[in-house]
Amino acid sequence: MFDLIVLGGGPAGYLAGERAGEAGLKTCVIEKMFIGGVCLNEGCIPSKALLYSAKIFDNAAHGEKYGVHVKEISLDHAFVVARKQKVIDTLVGGIRAKLKKLGVTVVEGDGVIQHRTPQGFAVKVGEELYEGRQLLIATGSDPVMPPIEGLREGFDAGFVLTNREVLKLEQVPAEFVVIGGGVIGLEMASYFNSAGAHVTVIEMLDHIAGNTDAEIGKLLQKNYAAKGITFELSAKVVKVGRDCVEFERDGKRISVKADKVLCSIGRRAHTAGIGLENLGVYTERGAVKTDEQMRTNVAGVYAAGDVNGVSMLAHTAYREAEVAVNNILGKKDRMSYEAVPAVIYTNPEVASVGRTEEQLKKDGVNFKAVKLTMKFSGRYVAENEGGDGIMKLLVDADKETVLGVHMIGNYSSEIIISAVIMIEKKMRLSEIKKVIFPHPTVSEIIREAVFAVE
Amino acid sequence: MFDLIVLGGGPAGYLAGERAGEAGLKTCVIEKMFIGGVCLNEGCIPSKALLYSAKIFDNAAHGEKYGVHVKEISLDHAFVVARKQKVIDTLVGGIRAKLKKLGVTVVEGDGVIQHRTPQGFAVKVGEELYEGRQLLIATGSDPVMPPIEGLREGFDAGFVLTNREVLKLEQVPAEFVVIGGGVIGLEMASYFNSAGAHVTVIEMLDHIAGNTDAEIGKLLQKNYAAKGITFELSAKVVKVGRDCVEFERDGKRISVKADKVLCSIGRRAHTAGIGLENLGVYTERGAVKTDEQMRTNVAGVYAAGDVNGVSMLAHTAYREAEVAVNNILGKKDRMSYEAVPAVIYTNPEVASVGRTEEQLKKDGVNFKAVKLTMKFSGRYVAENEGGDGIMKLLVDADKETVLGVHMIGNYSSEIIISAVIMIEKKMRLSEIKKVIFPHPTVSEIIREAVFAVE
Repeated sequence: MFDLIVLGGGPAGYLAGERAGEAGLKTCVIEKMFIGGVCLNEGCIPSKALLYSAKIFDNAAHGEKYGVHVKEISLDHAFVVARKQKVIDTLVGGIRAKLKKLGVTVVEGDGVIQHRTPQGFAVKVGEELYEGRQLLIATGSDPVMPPIEGLREGFDAGFVLTNREVLKLEQVPAEFVVIGGGVIGLEMASYFNSAGAHVTVIEMLDHIAGNTDAEIGKLLQKNYAAKGITFELSAKVVKVGRDCVEFERDGKRISVKADKVLCSIGRRAHTAGIGLENLGVYTERGAVKTDEQMRTNVAGVYAAGDVNGVSMLAHTAYREAEVAVNNILGKKDRMSYEAVPAVIYTNPEVASVGRTEEQLKKDGVNFKAVKLTMKFSGRYVAENEGGDGIMKLLVDADKETVLGVHMIGNYSSEIIISAVIMIEKKMRLSEIKKVIFPHPTVSEIIREAVFAVE
Repeated sequence: MFDLIVLGGGPAGYLAGERAGEAGLKTCVIEKMFIGGVCLNEGCIPSKALLYSAKIFDNAAHGEKYGVHVKEISLDHAFVVARKQKVIDTLVGGIRAKLKKLGVTVVEGDGVIQHRTPQGFAVKVGEELYEGRQLLIATGSDPVMPPIEGLREGFDAGFVLTNREVLKLEQVPAEFVVIGGGVIGLEMASYFNSAGAHVTVIEMLDHIAGNTDAEIGKLLQKNYAAKGITFELSAKVVKVGRDCVEFERDGKRISVKADKVLCSIGRRAHTAGIGLENLGVYTERGAVKTDEQMRTNVAGVYAAGDVNGVSMLAHTAYREAEVAVNNILGKKDRMSYEAVPAVIYTNPEVASVGRTEEQLKKDGVNFKAVKLTMKFSGRYVAENEGGDGIMKLLVDADKETVLGVHMIGNYSSEIIISAVIMIEKKMRLSEIKKVIFPHPTVSEIIREAVFAVE
């Protein structure tokens, strides 16, 4: 009998395992495929390994702007893919070791919730039955495969890929078509562009990068168009052929040649086949419904991570897992989605936290906006020849607190945590003005913006 | 008659000019050499331009770790130096434009404080007399040239350089000797190491990097020793010859061959020849003594930046300038040095804020320390093959607040601002635990450390 059974060993699941183990709960984590989940094995981490190689390559290939000259430069894609696996193995090994050290039982196999027991819940893995007083559902999400003609056949034939297969591609396709210009699509487009593919991004909306600040999305597109990526916006994919993708725009049908196709139009909570119906766990639009304490409708059953469909980001999953475990432990804690950062690891990077101008207008908030070129940062000028990065600071007009920070420019990914804290701590501009930002850093752009609020 | 005369146009001076101008004060900034001061013209900014070229070069030269192969790689030093000037011109142009827009008068020339006037103070520049109701001294600092045999002659002959001349070197010396292993010395050693010089760093103490966390200083040294820099510690330079530097250690005299020598043993407040004696402004160990409001002993006379000898960092100067202007405007504000970050822009970077273990022990503080390898960050693993970065989190054992964060590893420079805010806002660990750090970033190492505190 476990105190806690965690179904799923991704960011929400393994972290819940760690936190519960640290707190002394007898904990079991059940994972059907690999500890670390999609994030570590076929998402955030491997993509970052690829993108870093691409960055080294691009910086060297265009080093003449900084006085660096190279001849015969090449990117060894097969090596990059192999190295990526080493990175994964190192990190997964670290998680396994930590869970072991904390005495957390890891069960590898497909877990299916069975029924209530007098003291909790039973979960079956193969022939084995596990019983836990409490249950945390952390089964994550799967890529959406829309009912497009030829898509499923293309996938079965290895022509169409998801985030899983694309990271294992042994050769760089000459023509790489990405269906869906969200974060995953853009990051992979970015890598294969550097690696030498001609990349076409087909997006149904009239803009890339989803809910990212509209101006920043456009700037990102401009940067990648200059690097040779073709963007087809407002384009509805209607058919995947044997060597092409067809889309419709303005009533016209257009065909794009493809050697490989990445389907990255979104992800959907993984709720099928895990036995939710056996406990009557309530789902809404395919995701497990959770409250602020990460409780489901069934007492003793919690859910965290992508499976609740709220944010679909690894770092949200971490925090949700902690909120769940804290509530299981009887500690007061609640989930807040007000200061969840988002990063796109393209080159330049995009990072943001809080609401966008578009959202604030829709919400009818009285806010002030400051938009600055990143060139107000001395370091940015020193390190970005011809850079066109910007940052936007959105401030509550009454309270003078930060509502949103949106940036495009390198280091944004690592700077954004400071803006997360500003929002989380509801810091007023007058307080931020007293903070000593290190000089010269790109982070100073936030300070610059704070002083520019009128 | 000005409301405020600012003597010096470096970080403290030009920023005071901007803030005073914004507040509607009739302001005059007097600068003897170049607006932007040492920081922009011959310090922080140009060195960062050089170091970025070196980073691009090193990353490309060792790209095989990431699958990037190049042939015939070269660093065009003359180009790097020329580009650096463009960076400076862009940034100085920006400051000039801003001061102009705000209606701040910029006077170029040597300002000397003359005497009191019925309504304030008179400052002479050439034949012109300027009068201001209040006065801010922001004359910065000069490199220290110790009385070492042959040093002055070497300087006059162009063999010995300070931070000024080293940034203008048109050729990379074969043997480059750096006297003083502090921040400036290490950054220049780092650049010239990449640029192809054999570099020797001679340091009087038994460690490099001054007051940096001792273990991190050692790690930095180990990294650069592996890159080919020779470190001579506990070494007292006794003579600069015509093509060598001689030092003593353990009673032995050792000579090091040199084609150029950088003297970077420290900086001293610039107080001579500016007329302090005419007002009786009090100095202590050569620096203008200031209080928490940046006031000197003379009512109406303030000082900010290196000239007060406290911190000698550009970002401290910014904040001191703001405190001075706020007090001039009658707004309550006081300077705090508790959360002043420090960065060394080597590769790997070093960044820190707050006290070190060494200082906390000396101060008798009851603290807890967590030391982590940077490999707890997935992004660090993905981007740093063979990296040996670490981070230390120092926490008040009673209050559970952050006392210090010390890091070696890339992106530290841009991450440290988040730790600055944690200290400044006196955030407790329990609060930091609720902050959602973006994944995967190196900044997550702070979160990791917070959860590792026992």
